[in-house]
Amino acid sequence: MKLTILGCYAATPRTLSNPTSQVLEIKNHVFLIDCAEGTQVQLRKSKVKFSKINHIFISHLHGDHFYGLVGLISTFMLLNRESDLHVYGPKGIKEIILLQLRASGSYTGYSLFFHELESKASEVIFEDEKVRVSTIPLNHRIYTNGYLFEEKNKERKLNIAAVEEYAIDKVYYNKIKYGGDITLEDGRVISNAELSFDPAVARSYAYCSDTLYDERIIPLIEGVDLLYHESTFLEKEAHLAEKTMHSTAKQAATIASKANVRQLALGHYSTRYGSIDGFQSEAETIFPKVWLADDGKEFEIPLR
Amino acid sequence: MKLTILGCYAATPRTLSNPTSQVLEIKNHVFLIDCAEGTQVQLRKSKVKFSKINHIFISHLHGDHFYGLVGLISTFMLLNRESDLHVYGPKGIKEIILLQLRASGSYTGYSLFFHELESKASEVIFEDEKVRVSTIPLNHRIYTNGYLFEEKNKERKLNIAAVEEYAIDKVYYNKIKYGGDITLEDGRVISNAELSFDPAVARSYAYCSDTLYDERIIPLIEGVDLLYHESTFLEKEAHLAEKTMHSTAKQAATIASKANVRQLALGHYSTRYGSIDGFQSEAETIFPKVWLADDGKEFEIPLR
Repeated sequence: MKLTILGCYAATPRTLSNPTSQVLEIKNHVFLIDCAEGTQVQLRKSKVKFSKINHIFISHLHGDHFYGLVGLISTFMLLNRESDLHVYGPKGIKEIILLQLRASGSYTGYSLFFHELESKASEVIFEDEKVRVSTIPLNHRIYTNGYLFEEKNKERKLNIAAVEEYAIDKVYYNKIKYGGDITLEDGRVISNAELSFDPAVARSYAYCSDTLYDERIIPLIEGVDLLYHESTFLEKEAHLAEKTMHSTAKQAATIASKANVRQLALGHYSTRYGSIDGFQSEAETIFPKVWLADDGKEFEIPLR
Repeated sequence: MKLTILGCYAATPRTLSNPTSQVLEIKNHVFLIDCAEGTQVQLRKSKVKFSKINHIFISHLHGDHFYGLVGLISTFMLLNRESDLHVYGPKGIKEIILLQLRASGSYTGYSLFFHELESKASEVIFEDEKVRVSTIPLNHRIYTNGYLFEEKNKERKLNIAAVEEYAIDKVYYNKIKYGGDITLEDGRVISNAELSFDPAVARSYAYCSDTLYDERIIPLIEGVDLLYHESTFLEKEAHLAEKTMHSTAKQAATIASKANVRQLALGHYSTRYGSIDGFQSEAETIFPKVWLADDGKEFEIPLR
């Protein structure tokens, strides 16, 4: 489970920094989270294969979070993409994209599905056998969702030494992974507990950008392995954070602490600051495990 | 009069190349021509002052020519722009931009004027005392215009030696520049021909991207100082040029030759080519004065 930061600065694309976009690799998925202008170039720099992206999650319709989407969808056309693409985002996103595709006389050769969101309560928006994605309603100037990405680890881990000792055929491995006991040819029944270990603890990542400090998100992100919480400002600009409905590094750390997360990642920095080091030191006064996101950086979410 | 290439590659933004955008400095204007994704960063790299841009000319509604526009308009808001902004482009462009501004809950603090084009004949779309801009209807998959930018040099040049010899007061200089004779205090009349020189020859720049080879543009661009004519392909991919309604380097040079332009600039290169050198050599078999546009390069259009 790996997070790659493509861009994590607020407001405008600049020579050395990019507005928001991230890639989350979770199980067999490559999820794109937000898609600001410049995302295509950042994907190339980070060597993310375009064809692996089948799901895009857009938090809100401010330009620094989605103005790169229409271009990426167009590039997928030029690359002769055939597989389905799913876009999750606020109601209105479909009309914006389709209006532009129509104006360009272009039609995607692949199926493009929009999942428009308008609920103000958390909802599960994607689920398969291994992963679940749900919304985290945020408190910003326009309708905004964060996203919670959770592994679903149901499969038990094979005890290789044990299955080899009993010479159990590979066709039974899946049965063991899903908790079954095994009857040997001589009639002995070997209990699942002897043949497997408990599943790894399922990991989770919560993406929260952009938002005012809002404790209502705490129950939704309680105990996640990694929380990305925006910190557009430092505490000395708390008045700007309030005015623009953003957070400070201290506020992000307070949420992390109250939600008992394992690791906090900061980002969505205002470009007014010459260095981002101040965000780390400010947050660490409240919460010890702080990782400063920066464009091109990766974070491996470890197994527990 | 100076042309700065911000991007001159076809189709998609890439790590080392940008889709189309240019800046033309002509008289006191800074005109932005097309505005693909990445234009803001390229403007910063070329040190073009955002506040100097008051007119943006969009050729057509393919993404590689205008997907950076909505972001630039948004950035102008964040920079607290106050002066008017004029956008010229195909009918439909206004709806696309306003839909996105509405979705973001944003309103420009400056006046934003859209001049939507739909004529298939050339028309003058901007004119002041010093500059005239007209459309060059092109032949592409969707409605597309090139643009002809012309200086209007009406003012004669002062003959400094002569006006000083007659001790003519500065308040009369404008009268001389506009062709007037001067009556001295002793009653002598000094003819304008003695006090001024003919104006510099007015220069012109024709921007033609994207288009099939089409000789109908020749009368519109006859004798321009600089012609930018797209050359997406080399002649060995002429079949692709025809299919996608683009031109080859040889075709661009043929238009330049038949229109007797003073200088040809090539651009809008397909990213399939490892090097763009082949475009120059191919064009030079037809027309001698070829300049290869490339991202970040500048071209000074000399006085005649």
